[in-house]
Amino acid sequence: MNGILLVSHSKKITDGLKEMIEEMIGINSKVNVYSLGGMEDGRLGTSAIKILDRIQKCKDFENIFIFCDIGSAILSAEVAIDMSERGLLDKIELVDAPLIEGSFSVAVQASVMDSKDEILKDILAY
Amino acid sequence: MNGILLVSHSKKITDGLKEMIEEMIGINSKVNVYSLGGMEDGRLGTSAIKILDRIQKCKDFENIFIFCDIGSAILSAEVAIDMSERGLLDKIELVDAPLIEGSFSVAVQASVMDSKDEILKDILAY
Repeated sequence: MNGILLVSHSKKITDGLKEMIEEMIGINSKVNVYSLGGMEDGRLGTSAIKILDRIQKCKDFENIFIFCDIGSAILSAEVAIDMSERGLLDKIELVDAPLIEGSFSVAVQASVMDSKDEILKDILAY
Repeated sequence: MNGILLVSHSKKITDGLKEMIEEMIGINSKVNVYSLGGMEDGRLGTSAIKILDRIQKCKDFENIFIFCDIGSAILSAEVAIDMSERGLLDKIELVDAPLIEGSFSVAVQASVMDSKDEILKDILAY
């Protein structure tokens, strides 16, 4: 299983993006998408704690791909990764790609491919 | 006045993005942001008619910047531009940049700069 973690200041953005991705890949045994936008209380902002909590819940997955939009979304993801169990670091990838375009592409790849390198090949070349 | 037109398959995405941009630039006399995600009835999809309608309503603006995420969002924007009044084509820019990251950056630039070239300088270099 691959986890696709979507991080933005806006919960609406990551909720909408999760819907868009799930409409494209359908019910999928290889990919779970998580909307982690906004603060705990739903206001605009990002929460390292929310990201860390989701990383821990995905700890038995093969890969955990994290996508962020701008500024402190990236910072919060980096903090969450720093606070993660050391043993998880090999499976976590903070992907250097635009949030919508990148996560969409990687989710499609992850629904049909297995290795992390294969899944990321196109997106990192772009 | 500059128009920032946000196009995605998801209305949630463009609604959330409009909120994020407006929180950053505040009440602004130089920039109006429009959420054009989703079909007319709110379902996932894009509508060239909705984009065309907004272009026409922005016809007295100095610049009309259009941002899209993926696939047929770009196609719908291109169709809308093709159907626009010929006299508007010089002020319309379909920006080749990621939807969230691109529109955010251009909206901030447009809130403090005047010429289209200046506004787009950083985003197109990136």
